[in-house]
Amino acid sequence: MKLHIINPNTSRRMTEMIRSSAEQAAAFGTEIVCEGLRRGPEYADCAYDGVIVSHELVQMVQADMRMAAGYDAYVVASFADPALDALRELTDKPVVGIAESALHFASFLGYKFAVINTLPRLERTFEDEVRRAGASDRLAVVKLPPYRVSSFLESTEDAKAMLVKTAREAIEQDGAEVIILAGGMLAGYAGFLSAAIRAPVLDGVKCAVKMAEALAALGLTTSKIKTYAWPDAKKAYIK
Amino acid sequence: MKLHIINPNTSRRMTEMIRSSAEQAAAFGTEIVCEGLRRGPEYADCAYDGVIVSHELVQMVQADMRMAAGYDAYVVASFADPALDALRELTDKPVVGIAESALHFASFLGYKFAVINTLPRLERTFEDEVRRAGASDRLAVVKLPPYRVSSFLESTEDAKAMLVKTAREAIEQDGAEVIILAGGMLAGYAGFLSAAIRAPVLDGVKCAVKMAEALAALGLTTSKIKTYAWPDAKKAYIK
Amino acid sequence: MKLHIINPNTSRRMTEMIRSSAEQAAAFGTEIVCEGLRRGPEYADCAYDGVIVSHELVQMVQADMRMAAGYDAYVVASFADPALDALRELTDKPVVGIAESALHFASFLGYKFAVINTLPRLERTFEDEVRRAGASDRLAVVKLPPYRVSSFLESTEDAKAMLVKTAREAIEQDGAEVIILAGGMLAGYAGFLSAAIRAPVLDGVKCAVKMAEALAALGLTTSKIKTYAWPDAKKAYIK
Amino acid sequence: MKLHIINPNTSRRMTEMIRSSAEQAAAFGTEIVCEGLRRGPEYADCAYDGVIVSHELVQMVQADMRMAAGYDAYVVASFADPALDALRELTDKPVVGIAESALHFASFLGYKFAVINTLPRLERTFEDEVRRAGASDRLAVVKLPPYRVSSFLESTEDAKAMLVKTAREAIEQDGAEVIILAGGMLAGYAGFLSAAIRAPVLDGVKCAVKMAEALAALGLTTSKIKTYAWPDAKKAYIK
Amino acid sequence: MKLHIINPNTSRRMTEMIRSSAEQAAAFGTEIVCEGLRRGPEYADCAYDGVIVSHELVQMVQADMRMAAGYDAYVVASFADPALDALRELTDKPVVGIAESALHFASFLGYKFAVINTLPRLERTFEDEVRRAGASDRLAVVKLPPYRVSSFLESTEDAKAMLVKTAREAIEQDGAEVIILAGGMLAGYAGFLSAAIRAPVLDGVKCAVKMAEALAALGLTTSKIKTYAWPDAKKAYIK
Amino acid sequence: MKLHIINPNTSRRMTEMIRSSAEQAAAFGTEIVCEGLRRGPEYADCAYDGVIVSHELVQMVQADMRMAAGYDAYVVASFADPALDALRELTDKPVVGIAESALHFASFLGYKFAVINTLPRLERTFEDEVRRAGASDRLAVVKLPPYRVSSFLESTEDAKAMLVKTAREAIEQDGAEVIILAGGMLAGYAGFLSAAIRAPVLDGVKCAVKMAEALAALGLTTSKIKTYAWPDAKKAYIK
Repeated sequence: MKLHIINPNTSRRMTEMIRSSAEQAAAFGTEIVCEGLRRGPEYADCAYDGVIVSHELVQMVQADMRMAAGYDAYVVASFADPALDALRELTDKPVVGIAESALHFASFLGYKFAVINTLPRLERTFEDEVRRAGASDRLAVVKLPPYRVSSFLESTEDAKAMLVKTAREAIEQDGAEVIILAGGMLAGYAGFLSAAIRAPVLDGVKCAVKMAEALAALGLTTSKIKTYAWPDAKKAYIK
Repeated sequence: MKLHIINPNTSRRMTEMIRSSAEQAAAFGTEIVCEGLRRGPEYADCAYDGVIVSHELVQMVQADMRMAAGYDAYVVASFADPALDALRELTDKPVVGIAESALHFASFLGYKFAVINTLPRLERTFEDEVRRAGASDRLAVVKLPPYRVSSFLESTEDAKAMLVKTAREAIEQDGAEVIILAGGMLAGYAGFLSAAIRAPVLDGVKCAVKMAEALAALGLTTSKIKTYAWPDAKKAYIK
Repeated sequence: MKLHIINPNTSRRMTEMIRSSAEQAAAFGTEIVCEGLRRGPEYADCAYDGVIVSHELVQMVQADMRMAAGYDAYVVASFADPALDALRELTDKPVVGIAESALHFASFLGYKFAVINTLPRLERTFEDEVRRAGASDRLAVVKLPPYRVSSFLESTEDAKAMLVKTAREAIEQDGAEVIILAGGMLAGYAGFLSAAIRAPVLDGVKCAVKMAEALAALGLTTSKIKTYAWPDAKKAYIK
Repeated sequence: MKLHIINPNTSRRMTEMIRSSAEQAAAFGTEIVCEGLRRGPEYADCAYDGVIVSHELVQMVQADMRMAAGYDAYVVASFADPALDALRELTDKPVVGIAESALHFASFLGYKFAVINTLPRLERTFEDEVRRAGASDRLAVVKLPPYRVSSFLESTEDAKAMLVKTAREAIEQDGAEVIILAGGMLAGYAGFLSAAIRAPVLDGVKCAVKMAEALAALGLTTSKIKTYAWPDAKKAYIK
Repeated sequence: MKLHIINPNTSRRMTEMIRSSAEQAAAFGTEIVCEGLRRGPEYADCAYDGVIVSHELVQMVQADMRMAAGYDAYVVASFADPALDALRELTDKPVVGIAESALHFASFLGYKFAVINTLPRLERTFEDEVRRAGASDRLAVVKLPPYRVSSFLESTEDAKAMLVKTAREAIEQDGAEVIILAGGMLAGYAGFLSAAIRAPVLDGVKCAVKMAEALAALGLTTSKIKTYAWPDAKKAYIK
Repeated sequence: MKLHIINPNTSRRMTEMIRSSAEQAAAFGTEIVCEGLRRGPEYADCAYDGVIVSHELVQMVQADMRMAAGYDAYVVASFADPALDALRELTDKPVVGIAESALHFASFLGYKFAVINTLPRLERTFEDEVRRAGASDRLAVVKLPPYRVSSFLESTEDAKAMLVKTAREAIEQDGAEVIILAGGMLAGYAGFLSAAIRAPVLDGVKCAVKMAEALAALGLTTSKIKTYAWPDAKKAYIK
């Protein structure tokens, strides 16, 4: 089985962290191809960025299809879950977002969950995703640790301590039972944090890899009945 | 006051119908500049098209800003209301969609409304917009008249009869009290249809023009506090 | 165009503030007729008051109709939006409430809004209106500044400082991006407050005037299909 | 125990039917005082009527209080449940509506219920009441038998057959398990209909009488903490 | 009339408190038979306990039916409202839970209510019950006084003071207008607490007794149409 | 990895179908232990049955724990998803229901789904599960093919034709894009039906096996923070 994991950002450091997380999760026999965007924002964190990265994403998947790249499923590795609907039209192979995967996995492990977020502008995007995933009743809180992104990329002791403090507050003050780490740059922290707080901690990249494997293993494909039908080929694009 | 009405499709016929509708609605002293996209689908009707037209839309508004075009407000004239969030980040001038405008206007005129739609694939998009506008309880039905788009563009007698029949069914069978015509290509039919069925019929383009005029006249601008804050200028785009 | 703005309270000071706000918002060519109730509470703030002022409101509109007063639209200028359904039955001219207008306008300018309220007993009424307008997900908070109504009517420096403090808390602590000033007695403060906090501040009276103008300009009338059908004339009232 | 049952209509025939139903439901020792309005519509069925009858209702309860009439609880016997909030402010004795009572009773007897309605214009009012009672998920259908009100008042065989047919359709086609008869004029039919369809049939008047007895027997009074606090006595009404 | 009140716990002290509360609420002529479980947890407070006590409850009601015990209605006296659906299948006599009864009664007396809970693990169960009763919008808060269960069973002065403090916080900080005491062990405190805080306080056992009396007095039985149809007798149980 | 698949019914034929389905879905290296109940109904289809099978389920898992059976995860293979909360308290190994698994998988493959159900009494249970899984907006319809359970167990041509007809109706009339087969006895039909209707068809048993494998592979365990904390061991059960 061959999965295409796309980091819809241009940060190479983040792409490496996502690749590492995906490879740890992959089953024996799953091939992981992990790429970042070639153009676009280093870290997409607003709706304008979302338009830019969505445009790149559809072109990457179209290129795969022109080249018959043979992927069995796609993972879009941004917690904003951009362009999922458009990609599900372009291919019938399963397309899986990391936020929706983490939200569905969380529902099996506890009643209320918290999302730990590193990009303040994504808060409304998360609320929309949680609503779309039908999990609004179960969201305890979205927490934003008062810390710079770069600290997490460098994995300092301070960053770790801040993460433990934030997760404990989510549990003790907000009633969270499961912690979801939002975004690729926290991907490496799930194991450490889970041990520290003795509660399940979800890394969306890992959840998405397992979800993609599961859908592909069962031979399931995206429904082409209506919402995700192939785009109409006859329409002329003036480009 | 100067409004930029953008048809996020490339059909020139549709752009003319939208311009005509907007000019009829405009107050004395309102200048209407109405343009279609230069690239993209003739009629956008799926999520993939939405990605393409959103990308064009942000570039048009960015061009306006580089040229200090001096628009007082923007109207995006597609019933899919594409890219509104991104455009609200790029400018602080009011940005108004035609679907959201029609939905808000309808709430003053009756309890339940029907949407008459010409593009079957937009059904789910409409459901999302209705939910986003908080109008789910008031949506009686989305009706799709069994008719080709081209008939409406040519305004044949058959197309008119079909529209009356569809609206009457929405009223008699589904409990609608107000009719919303979705999409630019039905823009010219509101007056005719309202007279025929003796009920309010809303043309989203006209509603959006009045909404844009109202917001601009009151000197209101998009909040830059959080959701629609300016995109971070320091981020490097590798283009 | 001729608008009848009715203050459903008997305070003349408040009627003057509403008139002033309405006249500032009115387009060139819009005639504003602004009246308070002749009987009833000085400030309606409970459900019992609502019954009294609703009874007065229907009589005022019935008097207009007997006299063929020729109004193009009505504005009910209380944040409790009383008797709107009954008035929409009595006339087919648009009837617009100031709370619903402000709620719909807010949705174009930001994601979350706060309502600043001066009458503590209206809190539940506001919650009902927000739900009816479909805006529950977007309400950040209803704030009640710890201050006497009379201070606002006299526009003291203390009142202004309190208003700025309250709005800032709504933004910083509750996540509001747009501020709605509830009630006629705050009508004069929108411009001052918006400049102070650098965020959009909505005066419901102004929003309602623009909404009434927009509906009337498009020739739209209340649907008589069902919910707002004319009251049955044959029924005998024993009076 | 002494209950004041008020029919907020002027039809004497309907008041008699309500009195009969209330007396059948009353416990040993409960005194029923049942009155209709002296002024207002014979059958209130629209929002305008609602304003008129609400104004009468508050005056009746105010008269009771001036006369120290000594009622232990109030029942408002219209399926539109008018003026309940205002009456709960005027007295601390329990005030009970017949629609809300029937809705709460139904929830103990089955999962989905149908409302059989005789006044077509009340449909939206019922939807609001069902939402307010938190029973939206359980409403199977509101059915309107195609029959004149007068037939039910005369209790013809045709009216009975029509009622059975309507209830059976609600069960077989719409999934109803419990039938609620809306409005005083169907009050006498519950026993007959329940026997015919072998399912629980609720008469709102009887449910409200038992609810009022229960609240009064437990010595419970309306909370004066906030929503239903006494109207402010100091305010001057210019009458 | 004969009511079977079942305490789905094995604590005899709690059964006595429930019996006392039920007897105080019972109308003249109502016979109260109050029993605890013979097997199972002293205080059920988790889902596993719920499975155990549900199994005991169905056996007790089956025993009643074998012995033709002749109960007119059943009350399940745990705030977790266990096994109500199953019991409604086994008998057509009304089956009433104490939590659902309190929730429905509260809606007649104020807008927002608080639940005072003594068993921390039941919080999610309460949330489910509140949602099932359609009362989510009206729940102000679930408060857990920082106190041991045994204190309440012994009715110490400290326990009383703690209860008053908790109720006052619910009113002043959370906007509650009505207080619901959750669970049998607080059953004796409603009168004391209501006098202390001058607001309605509901004892679920008393509400359930009145509800059961009301349903039985009106001759109402559980609908056997669908959800609560009798279990299929032909099925073989291998026991 | 070792999964315990429990059929909470006593039908051996159904247990064999579930085992077959589970073994087809299992990854290389996953050991499937599939058992039915020893006591209880052949096919559980009502709330009373739910109480009985829940009691058996907790005993089976308790027996596993006494024997240190070493399962890595549990699957409860009834579409009613019984006792999941209780089992999640008894063990920290993932516990997965087949209905919730199918609902979560469906959300990746299409917007609206239909459930094909063979046991009419489970309709309300399904509605509860769909709500609990947050998927209410996406449920197109629950369809009940007019056919006897035994036909499906025997896999007759008539049963197959009926299934195709039912699925086509769900797609064409109700807007479904994905089909979920409810219950173990339809487990064998997913491949056949998917080929016939050219749309994804989900077998809950297979989805649950993949979900259990995914959770266990990532080393995730049920949160013991609050909702699913271990039952309190000190409590005495009088048995």
